[in-house]
Amino acid sequence: MKTATIVGAGLVGSLWAVYLSKAGYKVTMVERRPDIRKADISAGKSINLALSTRGWKALDTVGVGDEIRKIAIPMSGRLMHDLQGNLTYQPYGKEGQAIYSVSRGGVNAKMMDIAEEFGNAQINYNERCIDVNLEKGIVYTETENGERKEYQSDVVFAADGAFSAARYNAFQKLDRFQYSQNYIDDGYREILLPANADGSYRLEKNALHIWPRGQFMLIALPNEDGSFTCTLFMPMKGANSFESLKSKAAVQEFFKSTFPDFYTMMPEIADAWEDHPLSSLAIIRCYPWTHGKTALMGDAAHATVPFYGQGMNCGFEDCTVMWDLMKKHNENWDLIFEEYQQLRKPDGDGVQDLSLHNYHVMRDFVADPMFLLQKKIEAHFSEKYPDKWMPLYSQVTFSHIRYSDAWKTGQKQDAIMKKVMADFPDIEQVWNSKNVEDAILEELGVREKA
Amino acid sequence: MKTATIVGAGLVGSLWAVYLSKAGYKVTMVERRPDIRKADISAGKSINLALSTRGWKALDTVGVGDEIRKIAIPMSGRLMHDLQGNLTYQPYGKEGQAIYSVSRGGVNAKMMDIAEEFGNAQINYNERCIDVNLEKGIVYTETENGERKEYQSDVVFAADGAFSAARYNAFQKLDRFQYSQNYIDDGYREILLPANADGSYRLEKNALHIWPRGQFMLIALPNEDGSFTCTLFMPMKGANSFESLKSKAAVQEFFKSTFPDFYTMMPEIADAWEDHPLSSLAIIRCYPWTHGKTALMGDAAHATVPFYGQGMNCGFEDCTVMWDLMKKHNENWDLIFEEYQQLRKPDGDGVQDLSLHNYHVMRDFVADPMFLLQKKIEAHFSEKYPDKWMPLYSQVTFSHIRYSDAWKTGQKQDAIMKKVMADFPDIEQVWNSKNVEDAILEELGVREKA
Repeated sequence: MKTATIVGAGLVGSLWAVYLSKAGYKVTMVERRPDIRKADISAGKSINLALSTRGWKALDTVGVGDEIRKIAIPMSGRLMHDLQGNLTYQPYGKEGQAIYSVSRGGVNAKMMDIAEEFGNAQINYNERCIDVNLEKGIVYTETENGERKEYQSDVVFAADGAFSAARYNAFQKLDRFQYSQNYIDDGYREILLPANADGSYRLEKNALHIWPRGQFMLIALPNEDGSFTCTLFMPMKGANSFESLKSKAAVQEFFKSTFPDFYTMMPEIADAWEDHPLSSLAIIRCYPWTHGKTALMGDAAHATVPFYGQGMNCGFEDCTVMWDLMKKHNENWDLIFEEYQQLRKPDGDGVQDLSLHNYHVMRDFVADPMFLLQKKIEAHFSEKYPDKWMPLYSQVTFSHIRYSDAWKTGQKQDAIMKKVMADFPDIEQVWNSKNVEDAILEELGVREKA
Repeated sequence: MKTATIVGAGLVGSLWAVYLSKAGYKVTMVERRPDIRKADISAGKSINLALSTRGWKALDTVGVGDEIRKIAIPMSGRLMHDLQGNLTYQPYGKEGQAIYSVSRGGVNAKMMDIAEEFGNAQINYNERCIDVNLEKGIVYTETENGERKEYQSDVVFAADGAFSAARYNAFQKLDRFQYSQNYIDDGYREILLPANADGSYRLEKNALHIWPRGQFMLIALPNEDGSFTCTLFMPMKGANSFESLKSKAAVQEFFKSTFPDFYTMMPEIADAWEDHPLSSLAIIRCYPWTHGKTALMGDAAHATVPFYGQGMNCGFEDCTVMWDLMKKHNENWDLIFEEYQQLRKPDGDGVQDLSLHNYHVMRDFVADPMFLLQKKIEAHFSEKYPDKWMPLYSQVTFSHIRYSDAWKTGQKQDAIMKKVMADFPDIEQVWNSKNVEDAILEELGVREKA
């Protein structure tokens, strides 16, 4: 029987196990942590995620999408909260398009159930990967009691996350392995905004809430039980940083003055402050992604910062890409792995570039009237000329356009909009005029000729 | 008694042991390899190095310079070999200035002798560092037989090279540790050009020989026994790469057509081709360099490519810098480590930027008449106005100017020379004229005002 070992039973690992099981592989998974279905282990990770089109495709391809739809809450746009508590709504896409708030634990547990139910996948918990023989396809592990084990299989997948043990202990020791881990200045801390006493939501349920404040921001995503998982992103050090929020009094004062409408809903914020750890954010790039019988997938290959909500979606798309190549190359893993890494590396880089870019968009620009106007013009133009213009956010979130292509197109579009908006001093008045429309068309023509 | 552990008994580690011994520390060193004084172990590393001013200062400060002078061969300039075997000589600095060819093994062995002779340093060979408790200052090792040991001391230094075990196993696991390893496209292979039968040199002894050929180059440094250690640098893959030199016939043909004068001296090149391994070249950047009771030094902190001949010199200068801070802060290691990393990190980056820059200089420009002319004008101008202009090579090689400052000044100087040379279409004729001199002075004035 064909055999595969997967290091890491997280979101990508457990979805990929479903794919491999479906293809007839006997799948063994090794997972450092205990079974999340039996223990509450968040490991400092974000407990909420936004599923979008790429993620759904990967789920639906192996028929598990409907199971996840049962626990997903649609968010059709951003709802921005200013200092006075005024709200501005910006739809993410067209009528009917949305991203979906899901719980990491919920999705992961469902996927493990399904992987096991397929009958072939076995998950070994509390086993730490200590090394991988990449060429021979042997995974070496250590259990909690210090017992050493090894698993040899036809093919090995390391889906063990940003701090992948397989990558640290094996790939990074390869000659000429390119690698970088860059922590950004910002960190994050989660806060649970509870439901009302009657179980109802304290904020509009079907939106992603943002409190943009220039150098930092707070966001909130709905949970099924009426609560919201909120995340504060801000610099680790300096003025207005996590470093400056060391006392309960400082936390209380900060929320009162900076997020007054949030503070009104949650005056107990200072007491809840330490419920979740302060976590760091990094971009991790590496290459190659495959060697011998082993491939990196998901965060292990291309961990990114969370500002486009694409980390999980990109990892899931790795599964779709690998699956298509399995069929194309008739399960010749040498060919699959070579094409996988050559094809997919630019998109790993692309999703990272996009994520960093959207950090600035969310933090600074969504509170900028000119940015909001630009997005309104783009949406208007895109509706009239859908074949000529898809907004960047839609390319990333509601399409299967390669991340690397979306990033390139997005930069071109931004240059066009900047030019056109500068050419019309009265753009606020004429934004939906024929003249502006023609100017964009002309720039598109110029750009297409160039 | 004050205690210190040093991971790695290479060039920097063994020199630093001499410093610490002198300051009254009981020093324990752990070294992965056997005693190089008893076994011939080159570990794929370059066996020749060029000592220059920074290195000598670090040696002389603890009184070991004279011992090394006995085994050092001065090289006063570059001697370039063109395709026809014509030679062009370019002095490195002023009359009497030189860089010195030394053997890695020779210097390392001398330094180990001295470290042990001081009576306090003990070197434990064949012990691999497997982990470091950075905060408590505990080094964990494993011997060849699998025996585990640990060493706790007041302070720990990891001078275990580009692939530092202390950095991989401990520093890289710190939250927010910035890290990158970037392999360049080129690799290198060493070739030993033997002495003549009578023991005499086949090439001018007191020069560094270069065969620049655009996308690749060959260099040669003299050894004490009449031989030269030669190194071929070229791309790993593609046309004219190591990949294309797979057969003896290909090697022979390549040398015959590309380095004809070298081939005449060494027609047996194809047989000697595999005597030394093909090695990779990487720039490794990281931060922080210190944590708790542990500091990274030398290549472990800032491994660079070898094209400025500054790797060892920079590592030795780390010792000088740390030594000055030990005195300044009266051995308060918290203060020393914090200032060491803040002060020295820009210079680690600087030496890396300089090394990459000099790669292009050596490979491409030293065969370019305009580059040679530029250097001639700079030397001429610098001789007349030594307080206004020190050539970049001299700043790096013959001064103690910080690498970061040299890099900045060098870029400014290059911009000035490019402008002045473009302003005089007949520069070849008037290069040493008053007009050119005045133009440089004016640019310097402009630049100083700006």
